[in-house]
Amino acid sequence: MATGKMSTGAAVRLAARKRDLVGVTSGLAPSFLQANLIVLPSRYAIDFRLLCARNPVPCPLLAESSQIGSYHSLKSYIDGLTGDEIASDLDIRHDAPRYMIYRDGQLATSHVTDIATEWTEDHVAFLIGCSYSFETALTNNSLPPRHTIMERNVPMYRTNIQLCPAGVFTGSTFVVSMRPYKRAVVERVRDITRPFVTTHGEPIAWGWDAMEKLGIEDINKPDWGDAPLEVNGQSLDSANEDVVPVFWGCGVTPQEAVMRAGLKGTVLGHAPGHMILLDIKDGDVFSV
Amino acid sequence: MATGKMSTGAAVRLAARKRDLVGVTSGLAPSFLQANLIVLPSRYAIDFRLLCARNPVPCPLLAESSQIGSYHSLKSYIDGLTGDEIASDLDIRHDAPRYMIYRDGQLATSHVTDIATEWTEDHVAFLIGCSYSFETALTNNSLPPRHTIMERNVPMYRTNIQLCPAGVFTGSTFVVSMRPYKRAVVERVRDITRPFVTTHGEPIAWGWDAMEKLGIEDINKPDWGDAPLEVNGQSLDSANEDVVPVFWGCGVTPQEAVMRAGLKGTVLGHAPGHMILLDIKDGDVFSV
Repeated sequence: MATGKMSTGAAVRLAARKRDLVGVTSGLAPSFLQANLIVLPSRYAIDFRLLCARNPVPCPLLAESSQIGSYHSLKSYIDGLTGDEIASDLDIRHDAPRYMIYRDGQLATSHVTDIATEWTEDHVAFLIGCSYSFETALTNNSLPPRHTIMERNVPMYRTNIQLCPAGVFTGSTFVVSMRPYKRAVVERVRDITRPFVTTHGEPIAWGWDAMEKLGIEDINKPDWGDAPLEVNGQSLDSANEDVVPVFWGCGVTPQEAVMRAGLKGTVLGHAPGHMILLDIKDGDVFSV
Repeated sequence: MATGKMSTGAAVRLAARKRDLVGVTSGLAPSFLQANLIVLPSRYAIDFRLLCARNPVPCPLLAESSQIGSYHSLKSYIDGLTGDEIASDLDIRHDAPRYMIYRDGQLATSHVTDIATEWTEDHVAFLIGCSYSFETALTNNSLPPRHTIMERNVPMYRTNIQLCPAGVFTGSTFVVSMRPYKRAVVERVRDITRPFVTTHGEPIAWGWDAMEKLGIEDINKPDWGDAPLEVNGQSLDSANEDVVPVFWGCGVTPQEAVMRAGLKGTVLGHAPGHMILLDIKDGDVFSV
């Protein structure tokens, strides 16, 4: 999908805003942080902040609207960075390539190009860290994720691993992203991704025996993103003990939480894989 | 057990140090914070801090040794409080009433009165928040935990809920404490305990149907603490839909993690229920 590269996160946001972008943002502006989006009616904001604080691995909170109703400016949760430094010249209603719309806890519309007509003065946007942020580091260590080689979206799955509940957010479970790796390099993959603490960090599970623990039935049928393909074009096969699935917390988790909690009103999110790019780079946030 | 009360956390520490204390510390110095203890060889400190950061509900890190080998002074992780304010005149080797000793990931000795001969210059102590800290609030809201009425230790259970792994800490699961409540008051109990974010906060699960989800087979056979008793002296009965178990994250989780990870060397911890009292009070930390 993303064959070309763009020079900055701001350039990606502007292209999305002008509807010049097609496809997912994985690897689109290398080393610039990408963010998951969830937009909630303001009455749910306190509970959502607590959900993030209690579940920082799937829900690492980077920033939120500077005030209720603001889609132009951010309040930062990253030490040493202001909201303007995270993203200036921002329009959250247009800057993701594609969006999801939820009504009363149900997905109503998928992959729309903007949410300008849905946004109200009562909405609060939250930006959540994205695992795309450590893919550059994996690639730089000669361990490029398969889906980036194959130019596909990363596969994402519902699991039965409970989130710690927070107020109205009960009954939620982790969403995970998956990248297959040779069993022999899993410890290196853990080491490389461990420092990325606000973009999901090290994996939460790995190996074929993790499938049952997570409650994932078929690795080749993800709930979001593209089915995983080996570099030879083959599907993943659990009979192949040499290549194993590696699972990370995923920032689609808040969208799943909104559905599990049956939140009333209109909730907005990015389409999985179609992220909002930020102005900050890995090196601004992580010691890697 | 703890029928009398003591005036301060410091008084409890001194009594433990002089071996004048028998029994668990629940409710012993009302409103003073109590802490779980884990003492690790220094080579595991970085991974343990990350384990806490990734799992703040069972493992809320309050403070650690001010430097490797220090049992007298603390480095604080609580905003606005210094280590000395958390506990001065401290001796971590003596100030819990009872301790556990682990060797090479196995429990070696249980309920010893001090760890002076086990402590080395390579050990680092970590203090973790304790759910006893919200019991005063529950009591003040006319919802005293059953075990405090019955003067017993709170029951604690192993679960199959995964911790997010961190470095050497893999394969760990939540330990939970349990307090039974009438079904009708569970939402009030959630509300009352929610603000206590660094002492486990609101429950992670409740109701009889939570038993299977957590992997707890028999509510009347806890892994630590005393079996739960109703105020009439009866055991809990899942046939009684009116009274349900309510489960919180528990600071014994790090001791379980040490065993699951099979850590080499000597690891020390408090005996469950026999906490280290601090100099700070609920109101110093929580807005309640």
